Amino acid sequence: MKETPHLTFDLDTPGVSIGHLIVPKGEDYEALSLPVISINKGDGPRLLITGGNHGNESEGPLVARRLVDWLPGSQTCGRVIIAPEINPLAVKAFTRSTPVDGKNLNRVFPGRADGSVSERIADAISRVLLPTADTVFDLHSGSSIWDLPPSVIMHPVVDADLMAEMVRVAEAFKLPVTLVWEHPDTAGMFDIVAQNQGKVLICTEFGGGIVSASALAIYEAGVRNALIALGLVEGKAEHPIFRQRQSSQTLETRLSDELKSPARGIFEPRCSMLDEVKQGGLIGVLHSMESLTAQPVEICVPTASIVYGIRSGGYVDLNEAVTYLARPRKV
Amino acid sequence: MKETPHLTFDLDTPGVSIGHLIVPKGEDYEALSLPVISINKGDGPRLLITGGNHGNESEGPLVARRLVDWLPGSQTCGRVIIAPEINPLAVKAFTRSTPVDGKNLNRVFPGRADGSVSERIADAISRVLLPTADTVFDLHSGSSIWDLPPSVIMHPVVDADLMAEMVRVAEAFKLPVTLVWEHPDTAGMFDIVAQNQGKVLICTEFGGGIVSASALAIYEAGVRNALIALGLVEGKAEHPIFRQRQSSQTLETRLSDELKSPARGIFEPRCSMLDEVKQGGLIGVLHSMESLTAQPVEICVPTASIVYGIRSGGYVDLNEAVTYLARPRKV
Repeated sequence: MKETPHLTFDLDTPGVSIGHLIVPKGEDYEALSLPVISINKGDGPRLLITGGNHGNESEGPLVARRLVDWLPGSQTCGRVIIAPEINPLAVKAFTRSTPVDGKNLNRVFPGRADGSVSERIADAISRVLLPTADTVFDLHSGSSIWDLPPSVIMHPVVDADLMAEMVRVAEAFKLPVTLVWEHPDTAGMFDIVAQNQGKVLICTEFGGGIVSASALAIYEAGVRNALIALGLVEGKAEHPIFRQRQSSQTLETRLSDELKSPARGIFEPRCSMLDEVKQGGLIGVLHSMESLTAQPVEICVPTASIVYGIRSGGYVDLNEAVTYLARPRKV
Repeated sequence: MKETPHLTFDLDTPGVSIGHLIVPKGEDYEALSLPVISINKGDGPRLLITGGNHGNESEGPLVARRLVDWLPGSQTCGRVIIAPEINPLAVKAFTRSTPVDGKNLNRVFPGRADGSVSERIADAISRVLLPTADTVFDLHSGSSIWDLPPSVIMHPVVDADLMAEMVRVAEAFKLPVTLVWEHPDTAGMFDIVAQNQGKVLICTEFGGGIVSASALAIYEAGVRNALIALGLVEGKAEHPIFRQRQSSQTLETRLSDELKSPARGIFEPRCSMLDEVKQGGLIGVLHSMESLTAQPVEICVPTASIVYGIRSGGYVDLNEAVTYLARPRKV
């Protein structure tokens, strides 16, 4: 008999249960055992927290493990299920996509039971973990390539009530930015599958660059704030300190806010994330690698904007995204 | 007739010359043309500046290009030769080693004319560029994996006079740290080949993580300070501001100061670069990826130390370096 994805423990068990989500073997790879914890304190919100969707975003797995450390002693009601790294193959390889099949896990949801390993992981999450929750925190970050402020993002959904609820929960993190992101490439995202089932899916983007102790403290504080807002733990929510400031803003990014490289070359950032840039202002320049006499190509903003994310300096090909602009959200 | 490595212009030409260093083709790859600028203002110091030795350290190529922009108008004497990216194949691939032959360019010096492409690059640098200079700045950084303070490092050399001169030039950068690093793996380094010829080779380690506009400004200021100290440009040297402070310290790191992972797992940093840690103090922990019941493995410091570099959080194998400690240098 063919194995189906399943948990190694019973979710209805009260208290703390620790075990694994089994992703069955397929033609390309053996079965996977993803560590999972369930903290079941009876009636109340039902939350799923996932990390390691993209393997080169280590903040999620580490914040999830911090929660595993203290949440069992602090959670007062409801049920929280945490899967710190849902794509262990990519986490071990420190790659965005899964090395075995070359697929981006966050573009193959809801997955396929008879597909490649990324599709089987997505299928197991969609069929076993997602139905257990009303709210999902999928913990992402900017990897080492994108300079982003600690933020919570969501993609716009048609259902106005669901959208309002997602923004409410997102703002409860009290991270520097809450962003409604009109993204050009959402097919197969975990977000979309969850939202289509009416669930509140919150996607954190925990900054980028070095995964340091101080950065992790900010991200953990953000998740704790959201847990307080959901009523799962007691305490007082506080804005984490980021760059000597405690503040939050809600922004939106449209399709036209993605700036792409007009040539290949070495991208030199000339502004920083959260900078306010005037119309025509300089974002960065592209240097030719072939010659030192070629004039650098300037990349400027079409309209006055806030810089949400800017690419770390380095070589880019033609048409690679180098900046995401944003502006205050109009409701 | 077999082509030999050469410059496309005459180094004795006064003023600014721009062209290429030709690395001949070999069995594994075509000929390379590395952009080079020479700023020849007559008698005075003879300096070579190289970037892009490791392809995933983009700070060097970008700082070098900033110098290309302003140094021709500011240099008052001597000759400066700048090669912003000596390993363009690795820069384009954003990898430490050269993708064609899998070799670390900074471990194959002085190179071989009939070797693989990394060895041919090293040979061209060693035979054509290195003889033109008394002092070399090889611009490195911590890549996206290591959290390092902006620093200038050198490996200890037996010649006491050369050592003193290297420390003097290194301290002239006025970056937060000058480090004398007893490194376990120096065979084939550009440093060693240059030092064996009595040259002052300064290796910058321009921090790690996101290559941002503000980070680049610090690194450029450091190089400018050193150019002032060498007498190549006029001006007043100033400590760049790093983390709201203007300060420098000279440290040393010994072989025993490298802390390696005692197991495989997800490394969680618990302290930050430049933290002072007491004997037995916690550096970080390793989390098992297989189970959430396993106790995290603690990594502690054997003796009171300053943290020079700490690895960004993420998956590590057994025996990977996770921290480099340091202590004030004893002269």
